[in-house]
Amino acid sequence: MNGGSEVLLARLSDGLPADAVLTDPDVMSSYAHDMASFCDAGAPAVVVMPRTVEEVQHIMRTATALRVPVVPQGARTGLSGAANASDGCIVLSLIKMDRILEISPVDRIAVVEPGVVNAALSRAVNEHGLYYPPDPSSWEECTIGGNIGTASGGLCCVKYGVTAEYVLGLDVVLADGRLMTTGRRTAKGVAGYDLTRLFVGSEGSLGIVVRAVLALKPEPPAQLALAAEFGSTAAACEAICKIMEGGHVPSLLELMDRTTIKAVNDMAQMGLPDSTEALLLAAFDTADPAADLAAVGELCAASGATDVVPADDHAESELLLQARRLSLTALEAVKGTTMIDDVCVPRSRLADMLDGTARIAEKYGLTIGVCAHAGDGNTHPTVCFDAQDPDESRRARESFDEIMGLGLELGGTITGEHGVGVLKKEWLAREIGPVGIEMQRGIKQTFDPLGILNPGKLF
Amino acid sequence: MNGGSEVLLARLSDGLPADAVLTDPDVMSSYAHDMASFCDAGAPAVVVMPRTVEEVQHIMRTATALRVPVVPQGARTGLSGAANASDGCIVLSLIKMDRILEISPVDRIAVVEPGVVNAALSRAVNEHGLYYPPDPSSWEECTIGGNIGTASGGLCCVKYGVTAEYVLGLDVVLADGRLMTTGRRTAKGVAGYDLTRLFVGSEGSLGIVVRAVLALKPEPPAQLALAAEFGSTAAACEAICKIMEGGHVPSLLELMDRTTIKAVNDMAQMGLPDSTEALLLAAFDTADPAADLAAVGELCAASGATDVVPADDHAESELLLQARRLSLTALEAVKGTTMIDDVCVPRSRLADMLDGTARIAEKYGLTIGVCAHAGDGNTHPTVCFDAQDPDESRRARESFDEIMGLGLELGGTITGEHGVGVLKKEWLAREIGPVGIEMQRGIKQTFDPLGILNPGKLF
Ligand SMILES: Cc1cc2nc3c(=O)[nH]c(=O)nc-3n(C[C@H](O)[C@H](O)[C@H](O)COP(=O)(O)OP(=O)(O)OC[C@H]3O[C@@H](n4cnc5c(N)ncnc54)[C@H](O)[C@@H]3O)c2cc1C
Ligand SMILES: Cc1cc2nc3c(=O)[nH]c(=O)nc-3n(C[C@H](O)[C@H](O)[C@H](O)COP(=O)(O)OP(=O)(O)OC[C@H]3O[C@@H](n4cnc5c(N)ncnc54)[C@H](O)[C@@H]3O)c2cc1C
Repeated sequence: MNGGSEVLLARLSDGLPADAVLTDPDVMSSYAHDMASFCDAGAPAVVVMPRTVEEVQHIMRTATALRVPVVPQGARTGLSGAANASDGCIVLSLIKMDRILEISPVDRIAVVEPGVVNAALSRAVNEHGLYYPPDPSSWEECTIGGNIGTASGGLCCVKYGVTAEYVLGLDVVLADGRLMTTGRRTAKGVAGYDLTRLFVGSEGSLGIVVRAVLALKPEPPAQLALAAEFGSTAAACEAICKIMEGGHVPSLLELMDRTTIKAVNDMAQMGLPDSTEALLLAAFDTADPAADLAAVGELCAASGATDVVPADDHAESELLLQARRLSLTALEAVKGTTMIDDVCVPRSRLADMLDGTARIAEKYGLTIGVCAHAGDGNTHPTVCFDAQDPDESRRARESFDEIMGLGLELGGTITGEHGVGVLKKEWLAREIGPVGIEMQRGIKQTFDPLGILNPGKLF
Repeated sequence: MNGGSEVLLARLSDGLPADAVLTDPDVMSSYAHDMASFCDAGAPAVVVMPRTVEEVQHIMRTATALRVPVVPQGARTGLSGAANASDGCIVLSLIKMDRILEISPVDRIAVVEPGVVNAALSRAVNEHGLYYPPDPSSWEECTIGGNIGTASGGLCCVKYGVTAEYVLGLDVVLADGRLMTTGRRTAKGVAGYDLTRLFVGSEGSLGIVVRAVLALKPEPPAQLALAAEFGSTAAACEAICKIMEGGHVPSLLELMDRTTIKAVNDMAQMGLPDSTEALLLAAFDTADPAADLAAVGELCAASGATDVVPADDHAESELLLQARRLSLTALEAVKGTTMIDDVCVPRSRLADMLDGTARIAEKYGLTIGVCAHAGDGNTHPTVCFDAQDPDESRRARESFDEIMGLGLELGGTITGEHGVGVLKKEWLAREIGPVGIEMQRGIKQTFDPLGILNPGKLF
């Protein structure tokens, strides 16, 4: 340990309980990175786990005084390296700040600390007949703070929208330790610039979220799903367009390609129909889901579905969702490592996106499985590779990038929900252009003049 | 005309057709202000009405070169003075940029110029079976650019959310004339800071919106409404809380107090029950609205409604909405002038808000009618006064302010949807505090270093 680091530890310990300051090398290295491949991660100087807002303020004041970078972390399930440590940084893990402070059925809000796990909040509000929609597939692990940091999506977003739609107000500790409150606890409000939304998706680069006021919805009826099998991804995409054009409002509209289906079956023996090229999952949580499913089933058939299988009941529907949720994890088992793209295109271009991805897989001689939040046009082409094989790794990285290029060509974005992190920095610049980057940097400068907050991420 | 102004006109005319540069004094004075009372407005040097993005860029380059302030304007229906001219400014009216560029039923988006009138867009997308929800009562006049500038709400927001929820991407001309594109045309996207949402509600202070990509929904079934009469506003507010706590999702939940009801009857002979203290309007656009209305009617009765009258059909429902939409205009007729508050409180505090407002009316000896987007807790206490009477005017302004103070005490915001403009500047500072203001100013500085964009608004 060098002298600078000793001063840092002493100053931190001044305002933190002993068990909130971790310096064990194994612990520190386990907190060095999130779940993205191919992302550099440095060695933290210390991992801190505050329990109160005041402790977070103390940490940020110390960091400012000593000019030490700070990397905020939730559960580190991120897929872009946005929570990766930089050398000598303070890793600021919020996982101990995990209290649900309030749930109000009349105001339809919850007030939470950032370390609350997404599924824990979902279950808690369910008990009051309420519903917190954003449901990333990692929901049993990921935190609300991380969801806000990355502006997370999930399966239900096609009907209910993403995290940004549910964050009403925030308490944020700024880089210099000052506390700022943004937004409100009311249903509406337009007092000044929307700093709340500015923080959603800012990947820990503008301040530390220490409290959030979240909007809730009344719990909808349990959803009922169907699975439709297609002989080609193009036919499945045609069905998706017809469903959306027809004015249907599914609570879920997901697609798994052949590779993904097989990977899930291999991992969990779920009995998905793996001779099929594309499986479309649609669900409705309406008053009469069976009627909605019947209409959607017909559209699938009209687009050439080879089989349409409505779930018999909610348990069977849950099983289909389960299979979909397993996709990324299952694809990881194929070759040991994955790079997960997150390109979102206008849904009218979905077929082109899947076609193009197949071409890229062929060109690079790689397995690329695609699962997609298809109703939103948000695809996850997942490059499977053996990280021990340098040539395959190089090809994986190149194909990963080419997929983003394709997305931009099709009028899409490089990231629908996983964020930029370190993985897609050059691509952010390509997508938003020099003027956009200049304005983003200006905003960063306003909130973090010393550049100590999660440096090296985004741009 | 002074020399500076001659140079300005010459430079502007260099890149604009003759009919786009207006200097007639009567025309200029009619473009000096929006619809808010008590707001200072200066005398513009010129009013320009560009038709193309390039023309807007030329105007902004000229303004930057000559350091002349620019005030963007839509239809000037704003209620906070946010579109008011400052002395010697360029009034930049976007009303001639009024083309709907694209409507896509598959992607559920519309691409529009900023001068498109809200109702014109609504009707155009309806023809494709689509729905653009934000519906301020001024919808027959106000523009999408103004709606974005103020982050407008409306009657349907209780179910469908406000303008911010429907803006996916923007083309913006910056203060120096450069063009910046924000956001996307996809359903989801998290590439970098959310500059799109930063612009929504920024009141023309960060850049000129010249194009917007808007999200659309499928057109819901026509809504069916009921009217419930109450002997007190407290009872009506209790019903509102019960409705929302009960998990209902009305497409409209509005309240009119006795003063408002009477004003509407006086203006339009609509036959509203004006012996009643509060009228609650609820509507549903669900598959079975009559069933939903029956359930809500029972909750109203349980909260002491003296009468519950479901509309017989959609035409009768439309009439009730019409009455509600007329409220602000009708209250203006009471004494010739109004100041319209826009306080939004957590809906659990709605009764306290209405009580407190009645006390304030009594204290100042004034008529204050209240209509409210009650389901959202967004109240419009409307102070009626005679602008010729200096003492009454003073009392009006004081009561207007006291109402905002009450809103903040109740955990609310000073503005749910009308914005800050010049009318509520000190109140914005009170609501968001010095740290928030500092950050907001920093953002303003990034986008508008010379301070020429709508100066003197917000803070
Ligand atoms: C199997 C699997 C499935 C997934 N499925 C989805 C999916 O369906 N949809 C989706 O959107 N994502 C998905 N993800 C990605 C990931 O789970 C999300 O991005 C999630 O929101 C990250 O939450 P976290 O708590 O793990 O945050 P982390 O990864 O720890 O951090 C994410 C970002 O937020 C910042 N941050 C965290 N907490 C704070 C705070 N309190 N204040 C400020 N900044 C903070 C970090 O600095 C970092 O930039 C998946 C990941 C896996 C592994
Ligand atoms: C009778 C009546 C009823 C109303 N009801 C409602 C209601 O129910 N809900 C509600 O929210 N509001 C309501 N309003 C207020 C008003 O109609 C809204 O604020 C509306 O959005 C203003 O639109 P506008 O086109 O008139 O904009 P303006 O008043 O001209 O401008 C509003 C703001 O936007 C800025 N702006 C305009 N165009 C652009 C552009 N292209 N780029 C950048 N900035 C721009 C202006 O500088 C200004 O700051 C009502 C007003 C009246 C008179």
